[in-house]
Amino acid sequence: MIKVGIIGGTGYTGIELLRLLSKHPHVQIGAITSRTESGMMVSEVYPSLLGLIDLKFSEPNTKKLLDCDLVFFATPNGVAMQTVPMLLDQGCRIIDLSADFRFQDPDIFEKWYEVKHECKELLNKAVYGLPEINREKIQTANLVANPGCYPTATILGLLPLLKNNFLSSSSLIADCKSGVSGAGKNPNTKLLMSEVNENFRAYNVTGHRHLPEIEQILKSISQENFDLTFVPHLVPMIRGIHATLYSESKKDLLKIHSLYEAEYKDEQFVQILSKDQYPETSNVRGSNICQISIHKSSNSDALVILSVIDNLVKGASGQAIQNMNLMFDFEESTGLEHIALVP
Amino acid sequence: MIKVGIIGGTGYTGIELLRLLSKHPHVQIGAITSRTESGMMVSEVYPSLLGLIDLKFSEPNTKKLLDCDLVFFATPNGVAMQTVPMLLDQGCRIIDLSADFRFQDPDIFEKWYEVKHECKELLNKAVYGLPEINREKIQTANLVANPGCYPTATILGLLPLLKNNFLSSSSLIADCKSGVSGAGKNPNTKLLMSEVNENFRAYNVTGHRHLPEIEQILKSISQENFDLTFVPHLVPMIRGIHATLYSESKKDLLKIHSLYEAEYKDEQFVQILSKDQYPETSNVRGSNICQISIHKSSNSDALVILSVIDNLVKGASGQAIQNMNLMFDFEESTGLEHIALVP
Amino acid sequence: MIKVGIIGGTGYTGIELLRLLSKHPHVQIGAITSRTESGMMVSEVYPSLLGLIDLKFSEPNTKKLLDCDLVFFATPNGVAMQTVPMLLDQGCRIIDLSADFRFQDPDIFEKWYEVKHECKELLNKAVYGLPEINREKIQTANLVANPGCYPTATILGLLPLLKNNFLSSSSLIADCKSGVSGAGKNPNTKLLMSEVNENFRAYNVTGHRHLPEIEQILKSISQENFDLTFVPHLVPMIRGIHATLYSESKKDLLKIHSLYEAEYKDEQFVQILSKDQYPETSNVRGSNICQISIHKSSNSDALVILSVIDNLVKGASGQAIQNMNLMFDFEESTGLEHIALVP
Amino acid sequence: MIKVGIIGGTGYTGIELLRLLSKHPHVQIGAITSRTESGMMVSEVYPSLLGLIDLKFSEPNTKKLLDCDLVFFATPNGVAMQTVPMLLDQGCRIIDLSADFRFQDPDIFEKWYEVKHECKELLNKAVYGLPEINREKIQTANLVANPGCYPTATILGLLPLLKNNFLSSSSLIADCKSGVSGAGKNPNTKLLMSEVNENFRAYNVTGHRHLPEIEQILKSISQENFDLTFVPHLVPMIRGIHATLYSESKKDLLKIHSLYEAEYKDEQFVQILSKDQYPETSNVRGSNICQISIHKSSNSDALVILSVIDNLVKGASGQAIQNMNLMFDFEESTGLEHIALVP
Repeated sequence: MIKVGIIGGTGYTGIELLRLLSKHPHVQIGAITSRTESGMMVSEVYPSLLGLIDLKFSEPNTKKLLDCDLVFFATPNGVAMQTVPMLLDQGCRIIDLSADFRFQDPDIFEKWYEVKHECKELLNKAVYGLPEINREKIQTANLVANPGCYPTATILGLLPLLKNNFLSSSSLIADCKSGVSGAGKNPNTKLLMSEVNENFRAYNVTGHRHLPEIEQILKSISQENFDLTFVPHLVPMIRGIHATLYSESKKDLLKIHSLYEAEYKDEQFVQILSKDQYPETSNVRGSNICQISIHKSSNSDALVILSVIDNLVKGASGQAIQNMNLMFDFEESTGLEHIALVP
Repeated sequence: MIKVGIIGGTGYTGIELLRLLSKHPHVQIGAITSRTESGMMVSEVYPSLLGLIDLKFSEPNTKKLLDCDLVFFATPNGVAMQTVPMLLDQGCRIIDLSADFRFQDPDIFEKWYEVKHECKELLNKAVYGLPEINREKIQTANLVANPGCYPTATILGLLPLLKNNFLSSSSLIADCKSGVSGAGKNPNTKLLMSEVNENFRAYNVTGHRHLPEIEQILKSISQENFDLTFVPHLVPMIRGIHATLYSESKKDLLKIHSLYEAEYKDEQFVQILSKDQYPETSNVRGSNICQISIHKSSNSDALVILSVIDNLVKGASGQAIQNMNLMFDFEESTGLEHIALVP
Repeated sequence: MIKVGIIGGTGYTGIELLRLLSKHPHVQIGAITSRTESGMMVSEVYPSLLGLIDLKFSEPNTKKLLDCDLVFFATPNGVAMQTVPMLLDQGCRIIDLSADFRFQDPDIFEKWYEVKHECKELLNKAVYGLPEINREKIQTANLVANPGCYPTATILGLLPLLKNNFLSSSSLIADCKSGVSGAGKNPNTKLLMSEVNENFRAYNVTGHRHLPEIEQILKSISQENFDLTFVPHLVPMIRGIHATLYSESKKDLLKIHSLYEAEYKDEQFVQILSKDQYPETSNVRGSNICQISIHKSSNSDALVILSVIDNLVKGASGQAIQNMNLMFDFEESTGLEHIALVP
Repeated sequence: MIKVGIIGGTGYTGIELLRLLSKHPHVQIGAITSRTESGMMVSEVYPSLLGLIDLKFSEPNTKKLLDCDLVFFATPNGVAMQTVPMLLDQGCRIIDLSADFRFQDPDIFEKWYEVKHECKELLNKAVYGLPEINREKIQTANLVANPGCYPTATILGLLPLLKNNFLSSSSLIADCKSGVSGAGKNPNTKLLMSEVNENFRAYNVTGHRHLPEIEQILKSISQENFDLTFVPHLVPMIRGIHATLYSESKKDLLKIHSLYEAEYKDEQFVQILSKDQYPETSNVRGSNICQISIHKSSNSDALVILSVIDNLVKGASGQAIQNMNLMFDFEESTGLEHIALVP
């Protein structure tokens, strides 16, 4: 049994951590902080947790965090870097769901996030928390940088191709679609039901912050430079990411399909669909699964990979718990056996 | 051709006025104000109006308003009362879409809206802008208080019964359901897509501001006191109000049906459905129509009236233009011939 | 460990049984039948179950059912009555999610369901499977009639009042709203996304089949006749029922609130909210919980009870498993600990 | 004033034709046919048309069609080809919203639509009804093949580039997203609210029927062969198409932007957004407008074009009426001035 703390418990990744942790057999929740809701019962703010979490939100600087074996940061970018060094010093291990420790190169972080990095010395010690590529490093890490949602879906969709040099072009396109919960619980008129429902739109076409994150990981996998075009879109739904990935390969479909099955055969949270099935985001709604399908043009080298996740689970809080399980030597799927809610 | 001004043009009733007015043959838009967007092109904020409205948002105190024959207030409650007297003095006529001038009794306003009324002397001169009950008064009014959305659907649903003493109980229940655009374009986390979609909830059960508004009008129609229970609910959709009205009558269904048809036979914007049809909010999406159906229990006096409108059209901006047409002696349906968008 | 069979596994209550049962520690799934999909892998039809259910759909008459300790009927009305006697003879116990065995009086069934009842002799032996009123009878029953979704939300909302004669009027109104999954996976144009989304409508105003079911149970609780008006509405969402219940009581709110808390204090799946909270259907999305709040007018006897459930869980498959747990002496909440998916 | 007939009036393109035509000043509706609803009042099936269309649905073989100057086919593929020759002989002009006459090469039609073409002799006489490329031919055509929805959005998005040889690669990707109304009013469980809402998925990845249609037109514009990858996706909304088009160009963004503005400067229904705006499908909901934006990578040749339409208006019935206006020498925008419904 470990004691964990959650900093920033009122956002959507915070509440999702609570949903998943409150039934985790090896975890006791020591503290949940929230600047805006401190003093309120968690179940008052989130009545879905009535009877499950008998805690109040604490101030962010609560001493209770120091007793925790592990602290999750479910905070906006730029927050974790200010407290992580102190917590590490106190012996807490850290999983940061924000972008603060995802980049090896602080210049990239500072360029894209437009904030000075105040803790550059830890960037090299942070492990990028995608278990499918960094499982062993995560087990011993004290600081895990939990991946972004788009990067998770995209990297898992491309990983076997890159590792095995199956691509015949350096041009990659990631046309990604996300439900609106990815934008968080922010009082922004752009995220209102009246603006989002019955509407579909692209955003950040000329530069989304997840682009350099994907580029960094792709390069670390393949040692090659790819020319990646990444266009995110907002879907009128709450949860789910669907990545449609375009590239080129001279290999035939059967061979590529076998490659994917081999790559992921021991992974509990990545599933390769048979070749006449398409993944739907509802297949993974509420679960930690990534489903992938592979399609190839019969008369050209064009390759289309489809990859879906729930942005709040495998794209955020579920993956964070998967990382926690690895760090504390629990069975990797503990507390993550949720089956997708269908319909 | 008249010149109109719109104060508060960036909210949902403001943009809806623009949609409806920009094709109105007798109207020229003289000014649109917005504190937050002043200086921006209207079509930059609302690209659906590209090529249609070649105007910039002005500051709320723009002199251009003084040249207008008519000024619409599409502002939060408490704003209109501060400027209306000056504009009336300048010869502008006014349609106020907020609640400032809906109540004869300032105490009721102050109790429910929790703000001091700063212009009580005009309350008696203001006409409640529901054409189906006040058509003649509206024609000559200089200040029209445009009704709330719930009151419009509820009063039109009950009007024939009250006028003709068809009810056998003083107990009335209005179980009302509204799309989320009724709450406006406000950066409130409660209105986010992630909170509203796939969710249904009641709100303000013990007292919504439209309750005293409905009570005032019901009493003015029937001279009797009704014991009204009004429960509003939020529907995961953008537009539409559905009122389910419960009361009791000893009359038979056929007679009640005839009464409704007689009451509304000359009304262009109220339609009585045949007895085996139920109104759906999509029937009136984007149109100024109110559709009503009547149902009676076969073995009791229980009466169920269903009434639907589009909250932004007949429940706000469409009704405002209907009032404008009456005030300036235009054909009542001018600019309001829109057919519902189905599907 | 018991072996269970599911007849009619491809509908929404069928897939929901699979979601809940596939992690149940004491249950092995022996057979799932489907006329239309027999021979197909379950996970091919429902890819959310990939890796979890390694079974094919069988023909409805499969012998495998005879080996089952318990058979669930997730079939259209009129199907279960044809096979239940044979299965009971073979020693199977039965939970029927359809309406076939809900009515004591076959005439009521035949009038409302417009089909001849072919198994009247079992009606008296069937137990109405609402644990909160029939827990002991369910434990020993061989045939459980699982309640309808509207009746579950409505009866749980009214139960304390009826048992304790707290109502001062015989008039009851249940204005109920349901997500569209309640109508099943039927190829009906009325249920298409294009018809349901951005739309709200009442249906079956003059007589829904759940009306006599509610009436029968209310009468069995209170021994009195109530004059119930029940109007169901279709909400543009997938899951969730919200019952808004209107009645009258002379008791004060505090007393009524205490009554509810006392009635349900030992119930794991019924939660009474504090008096300033309203239940939202998303609070219980995917969980077996019923949340209830109580509101009373300050200046009249009018009483408003709000009650929400997930129609596919507490309103169908979750309640069926709760009944199964009782019948086989498992801890009542086994396999039902799911926390609502929020957001 | 012309008399028009509509064959297949109960589907979504049929009802949309009625919405747009019922206020068209030069059109009288002579007949609306429907196999399934013949004999019923149009307004009974579509209550949004109450008071606007006082007609009954006729049998498909009604003689009334012969009196019509123009007949619209809003029928499934394979129907129009059987009746068009006879109607042309009778002097009716035709606009076919199905795919029957879109292909010059009958083999392509037969391969993709899996039905024998029974009227090949008319394929050369049919004009592809995209006014922006075929305006003059449409004016004199007797048989217009109205384009598909995906082709309309895609071709308008690419047209300026192709006409002017601005592309530097023969590889084109059209990642397209559509609302569900594009699939019609078909009783298909895949289109149910419970399946579509809160879900996002690709479909027909390895071959959608609109692929050869787009290819045919692209080739006719540029005389070159492009290697087009087209992946359609289903969005949980009713109306709207969003095409995200990927290609490469060595020209700079400013030059490309000017090209688009020049190409479309006289087009009433195509709007080029400024370079910091993205089109949203809600901008054109219910209107005949296509909005396009252009984006280019700063450090590569990658070009991203975004193009949105309402699939039922510019993607079907609106475009059909635009064609009708051209054929009968009415002002091209007559009856098509609808402003998008926002929000």
